[in-house]
Amino acid sequence: MNEVVASISISVDGYIAGPDDRPGQELGVGGERLHYWIFGGPWTYGDDQTTGATGVDRHIVDEWNLRSGAVIGGRTTYDIARAWGGKNPWENEFFIVTHRPSDVDADPQQFTFVDGFQAALDQARAKAGDKNVHIMGGANVLRQALEAGVVDELMLSVAPVVLGGGKRLFDGFARQTELQLVQVVQSPWATHLRYRIHQ
Amino acid sequence: MNEVVASISISVDGYIAGPDDRPGQELGVGGERLHYWIFGGPWTYGDDQTTGATGVDRHIVDEWNLRSGAVIGGRTTYDIARAWGGKNPWENEFFIVTHRPSDVDADPQQFTFVDGFQAALDQARAKAGDKNVHIMGGANVLRQALEAGVVDELMLSVAPVVLGGGKRLFDGFARQTELQLVQVVQSPWATHLRYRIHQ
Repeated sequence: MNEVVASISISVDGYIAGPDDRPGQELGVGGERLHYWIFGGPWTYGDDQTTGATGVDRHIVDEWNLRSGAVIGGRTTYDIARAWGGKNPWENEFFIVTHRPSDVDADPQQFTFVDGFQAALDQARAKAGDKNVHIMGGANVLRQALEAGVVDELMLSVAPVVLGGGKRLFDGFARQTELQLVQVVQSPWATHLRYRIHQ
Repeated sequence: MNEVVASISISVDGYIAGPDDRPGQELGVGGERLHYWIFGGPWTYGDDQTTGATGVDRHIVDEWNLRSGAVIGGRTTYDIARAWGGKNPWENEFFIVTHRPSDVDADPQQFTFVDGFQAALDQARAKAGDKNVHIMGGANVLRQALEAGVVDELMLSVAPVVLGGGKRLFDGFARQTELQLVQVVQSPWATHLRYRIHQ
């Protein structure tokens, strides 16, 4: 059976977005720092000309794409990313979990809206074949996956910043879980910690 | 001038102690896991026969001792550790921050009680000479040091466990801070992330 792998970018103090996140600064104050590794270095809100990931960060992205057969994301992430300009940013079918699928006016060739995490997971597993299902976050969908005990691998990309507020990845998460660190990749912009989860 | 280095053990979800910490299980449910690296592997409350740190973990401890000229700890940590059996566990003078110095019945040859973090830091700096002042936690003292902007280096020893509750290191901490990762050391029991802090 395929594996379920989850990945998310996080600050040293555990936030996936900084304080005061709102339209125009969707990752909050200082939150750009979380995604330096994805954009190839420093950028700020309004920058149109970011390069993509480079070096070991590029390798991380490529490897995840290669192993992935379907992607699951959350509705908040979809909205924050402004639907990636209306175009699926992944190479595989992209399932968006939302309680209001009918509410979304998007190209069904680009995004598949599913009402509920478990239904999205079932469809993504079927689609992925012998490749992985990749859960890209946000925090809510990732917590649901961890709560359900279905995640085989979790990668935290820890940006070297204390944000001092914002949205916590593990906010309200109460399921004690043993992990095993299987890989550390260090780039100038993040420390990628890959954990196996033994359910 | 000497440097101020801080170190603490933490779970993947940011806790320095698990849920339901109380006498007999001072690190909370599952919290022993945070200190496997210090004790050379799995142990549980009531174990008298733990070995010390081994391998790369031993090296980490030895290096910190070697570079350290004075240590600062918090009163809660002192109480939780039951005063380390009445004997200073470090090789250097050990300053304990407490608002109730007169409340403590301890050998002044072993521990120096100081009323307030800044006073403890001043005394520790004077004592350390050209070596480092080592802040060992707990969370409250470490947050005070970070808030004051006096920490040059922060080492987080991340145990591979999600505790799902307990005491958060960065609880209520709002000072946004840029870090630089300078070293990663991976042991079977923890990932030691050493950061420089640029004030």
